[in-house]
Amino acid sequence: MVVQQVVPETVERTATAGGPDLERIRTALLGRWPGVRQAARDRMLDPALHRIVDQTVADHRERVTAQLQVLLDSGQVRLPFPEAFGGTGDAGGNLVAFEEIVTADPSLQIKAGVQWGLFAAAILHLGTQRHHDRFLADAIELRTPGGFAMTETGHGSDVASIATRAVYDAEREEFVITTPFRAAWKDYIGNAAVDGRAAVVFAQLETRGERHGVHAFFVPIRDEAGRFLPGVGGEDDGPKGGLNGIDNGRLHFDGVRVPRENLLNRYGDVAPDGTYSSPIASQGRRFFTMLGTLVQGRVSLAGAANSGAKVALAIAVTYADQRRQFADAGGEEQVLLDYPRHQRRLLTRLAGVYAAAFNQEELLTDFHRVFTGEEDTDERRQALETFAAGAKAEATRHALETIQECREACGGAGFLAENRIPQLHADLDVYTTFEGDNTVLLQLVGKRLLTDYGKRLKAAGPAAAGIVAAGIAGRAAGAAGVTALVQRVADGGTAAGAARSLRDPAEQERLLAERVDVAVAEIAPDLRPGSASPEELARRFGARQHELIEAARASARLQQWRAFTRAVEAEEHAPTRALLALVRDVFALQTIERELGWYLVRGRLSRQRARAVTRLLDALVTRMRPHATGLVDAFGYEQGHLRAAISSGAEQRRQQEARA
Amino acid sequence: MVVQQVVPETVERTATAGGPDLERIRTALLGRWPGVRQAARDRMLDPALHRIVDQTVADHRERVTAQLQVLLDSGQVRLPFPEAFGGTGDAGGNLVAFEEIVTADPSLQIKAGVQWGLFAAAILHLGTQRHHDRFLADAIELRTPGGFAMTETGHGSDVASIATRAVYDAEREEFVITTPFRAAWKDYIGNAAVDGRAAVVFAQLETRGERHGVHAFFVPIRDEAGRFLPGVGGEDDGPKGGLNGIDNGRLHFDGVRVPRENLLNRYGDVAPDGTYSSPIASQGRRFFTMLGTLVQGRVSLAGAANSGAKVALAIAVTYADQRRQFADAGGEEQVLLDYPRHQRRLLTRLAGVYAAAFNQEELLTDFHRVFTGEEDTDERRQALETFAAGAKAEATRHALETIQECREACGGAGFLAENRIPQLHADLDVYTTFEGDNTVLLQLVGKRLLTDYGKRLKAAGPAAAGIVAAGIAGRAAGAAGVTALVQRVADGGTAAGAARSLRDPAEQERLLAERVDVAVAEIAPDLRPGSASPEELARRFGARQHELIEAARASARLQQWRAFTRAVEAEEHAPTRALLALVRDVFALQTIERELGWYLVRGRLSRQRARAVTRLLDALVTRMRPHATGLVDAFGYEQGHLRAAISSGAEQRRQQEARA
Repeated sequence: MVVQQVVPETVERTATAGGPDLERIRTALLGRWPGVRQAARDRMLDPALHRIVDQTVADHRERVTAQLQVLLDSGQVRLPFPEAFGGTGDAGGNLVAFEEIVTADPSLQIKAGVQWGLFAAAILHLGTQRHHDRFLADAIELRTPGGFAMTETGHGSDVASIATRAVYDAEREEFVITTPFRAAWKDYIGNAAVDGRAAVVFAQLETRGERHGVHAFFVPIRDEAGRFLPGVGGEDDGPKGGLNGIDNGRLHFDGVRVPRENLLNRYGDVAPDGTYSSPIASQGRRFFTMLGTLVQGRVSLAGAANSGAKVALAIAVTYADQRRQFADAGGEEQVLLDYPRHQRRLLTRLAGVYAAAFNQEELLTDFHRVFTGEEDTDERRQALETFAAGAKAEATRHALETIQECREACGGAGFLAENRIPQLHADLDVYTTFEGDNTVLLQLVGKRLLTDYGKRLKAAGPAAAGIVAAGIAGRAAGAAGVTALVQRVADGGTAAGAARSLRDPAEQERLLAERVDVAVAEIAPDLRPGSASPEELARRFGARQHELIEAARASARLQQWRAFTRAVEAEEHAPTRALLALVRDVFALQTIERELGWYLVRGRLSRQRARAVTRLLDALVTRMRPHATGLVDAFGYEQGHLRAAISSGAEQRRQQEARA
Repeated sequence: MVVQQVVPETVERTATAGGPDLERIRTALLGRWPGVRQAARDRMLDPALHRIVDQTVADHRERVTAQLQVLLDSGQVRLPFPEAFGGTGDAGGNLVAFEEIVTADPSLQIKAGVQWGLFAAAILHLGTQRHHDRFLADAIELRTPGGFAMTETGHGSDVASIATRAVYDAEREEFVITTPFRAAWKDYIGNAAVDGRAAVVFAQLETRGERHGVHAFFVPIRDEAGRFLPGVGGEDDGPKGGLNGIDNGRLHFDGVRVPRENLLNRYGDVAPDGTYSSPIASQGRRFFTMLGTLVQGRVSLAGAANSGAKVALAIAVTYADQRRQFADAGGEEQVLLDYPRHQRRLLTRLAGVYAAAFNQEELLTDFHRVFTGEEDTDERRQALETFAAGAKAEATRHALETIQECREACGGAGFLAENRIPQLHADLDVYTTFEGDNTVLLQLVGKRLLTDYGKRLKAAGPAAAGIVAAGIAGRAAGAAGVTALVQRVADGGTAAGAARSLRDPAEQERLLAERVDVAVAEIAPDLRPGSASPEELARRFGARQHELIEAARASARLQQWRAFTRAVEAEEHAPTRALLALVRDVFALQTIERELGWYLVRGRLSRQRARAVTRLLDALVTRMRPHATGLVDAFGYEQGHLRAAISSGAEQRRQQEARA
């Protein structure tokens, strides 16, 4: 394999004595599973795993299907499974390795996610010993390619409302699975169009005339020759905007019978006589517990999307550091990255990727603790789900916008497939809406914020509740002038003073937390359960939906900021810590700047300090600029990961030749 | 040809007696060339012109190349050329027809743009009679497929710095064209990789040892069999993020000789003995005059991008009006477009597309006047160039963001090629950076704003200049409290009062104009020519670049607002006018909301009124909602233009079946 290496002259620039040590940053980014991550990353240098551009959908699918075997042979995909299946139960490490596949081909990542992260994982987590014994090894070893048939054409995010039915027939001890109408076809199911031989099918369980909600069933769908089994039908979803290496398709069932034992019965079972039983009494809680296994997908997509953003930024920053355009006053053509506007475009994004990366490590740790059983409580699971929802929504959105910004920042070069960025956008686009639509996920986070707020009020007791509420929200309207005055005094009335306090982590946290707390406190009274009729409450919820989602997004950013700050504090080498703090400050200030109107309307920022935000941000990105290439090199990707003509030093060589 | 038609039940909803008349809006949108537009639109229903998904790059290119002949046979492409060449000289009508091609396949649009809008148009506009006689008919009639070889790998936006040389050899009365180094290869040139037999090549003209700047030359590049001519070389740009129906490529020249007469000599000529002459004395002005012909591309891309956004919105709004997700309080599943957040996402975009559409009509009119010679003065040309630069940057950016929003708003369905939106994004992506990178174009607009501001000060005379400046900028800092106070008084201190005044067009214009004027007045003193050394001025310019570009963008939005408002005023049917005014208000308020921080920092909006902006915008999009499908139907596109499964009523049928 030929990997073109460029002399990293730009790294030297920042690695001067007494300066920050980029090796330390690279190590910090490798995170809590450095060995697993590096091994997975090295594996992705194998050209056999790389995307080939300009393949037809059929050819791309075939290539990716074959690549799954390479992943299996590497052993990587067995990691999260029990020892009996060749794994170590390393839930977190598995996701770390999974994230890295995106650098080879996002289609491969998602295809692997379908087979092992959804299909096999559902057998593991929703099934019991008998399913593990009968189905799991074949799923893991690719002898049974399988789909995860949850989503229906008519119901994406609202899984509870799916219409596929599984009715128990006690006489034959079988479930009869039926698709009642067109909107209930399973849709967008990976492996469904071509490869799948079986699927974990989600359906409304009915026995003895009673419905018990959504359950999962192991359903064979095709024979050895790839023909649909009797009663099963479907169609191909056809070409997509990206991820065309995966054969997404539709499935429908017409009285398809499976043995009673094919019900994945960890959270609900049916006895031979049709008696239903479940360890979880509440149908609602049972549903959410089952869906809880989906959190794995969200955690891994957050990380994978950020890896995609890293690749795009590494390409765009390298190019911007070499590309010259327009002469300066001295007649010398300026490097793009020396333009303050270009710094704004790329370096604020770079700070966002760092924030998402450190956040991801904390998310992975929480996930690992819950999924290995180390700290598997209801409360922890719920907290993890909220954390994952916010992190996934923010990371995927940020990644997509970053890739687009990189595309445009590279001009025409950024539009050529040889420079990689367009495919990243095409593939990662759907990360914002699958495995939980970002809007729906943020709404979940928002509801959790409201619940937590309600609990705080309740805990304070009826007498103190008003005071607590006022303490959070009341300041907003009435005492705004005071806040502004306090800021003026604190800043000593000077721009330098304002800048100083805006770089104070305590002040950053205060502002970022206020953005969440005050918004929630503004919304909550209107939506208090019982304060109005259900219809009126629903109407009010709709009216505040936009605000609530923005508050949820702010809370996801706050969480990133906190993770970033913990990473800064953990760094012991002072110059390196200073660089990380600088990047963290850029992250904080761009977040605040984007919400400047919100802060000013509520008097949470004085006008003077608000002005200082923009100026300080400008100054800080300029200060980041000399470290820009070092910071993207610290991602640890090689040319074999980036695979872009403009990241290979070609532009530098052209420029040198032209100047000579 | 089968075009699936759906019963437009949603149109009826808004076409009630006494309500707005959507036919009038449709007519208004057809604009000033309704016949040409409708004919071009009807032509685009021909399946032979449509994009087929999942073609290889080679197949797609071949298809598009063949489609050019269909366009030629229709006569549409001859429109802008002189009568002798089958045209009518209808410059504006030509662009109108060109805009519509995007609905068939953006690749076809751009390929046609290369052949007729760039290659043939350069012969027409930069050449003289002898070139028209020798080259033009072959170019128009596709006997000479040609490229427009301006951009170089090393120089995109900075055309003045291209390095290709054309040195005059008086002895042989020939120009010798040479590419001095790799960065000077022509790049991204449409028709260069495969089809081109000739190219209009831009090069630095040298004669008698003197350089006279960039000139254009007609250069044969391939023989009849498609082999490069001696001295010409090149390579394929390969697959791209989109627009893969066009064979972009690179070209280089090694002492390629062309006759003296091949210099397109309208603005500069070389006599047989090597004497240079030009009707324009200044090399700088000559350069900008030649480049002025490029304005046609910008005008047409602004319109085409907006057409693409219309298609995406028509699909997404139709789907959102039919798709149900999550039950409301009554157990009934809600239509997506009834969610306020969804209204925000799509209807603000819809308002933006209306604004761009009305703006485009004014831009086309100005363009037509200049290019038909009706009002072809230097001043008009310069104003047109500024207008086109701002309109192109704003329309292409808005279109791309709109398409992305539509993609996500349709969830998984929006990612399927059968629903069209992904290809629109892939193809229109590059519209933001080609034919003038948006950042560079907005910088041009910004510089013009600074120049105009300087002229106003100068016109006021030295004594009054300070007063004028203070009148614009001074209020910002000092008298902000007064502005806020005045607003509180005007609004009567009530939210209703604030909402009333925010819907007042005079107030909207004041706010939108202030966003431009105050920003320019803030920046100008720092950048005044002569106020510092060139190096220091360049540094300052960099430091203010971001602000200046934002001001330029605001001025483009202001221009859109004004065009929209003129369209509202021109509407004589009161209920229709009221609907248009509502959409215009949504456009104004979202523009102001996006800049809320800017207004508040400068005290140009009181906190009370700033809060009212968001609430009013929420209320107005909800008021727009019942008209949403009518407003997208008024774009005038049929299913044969949209070609999306989810725009065909399929979702509606599925929902009805599911509910039954």
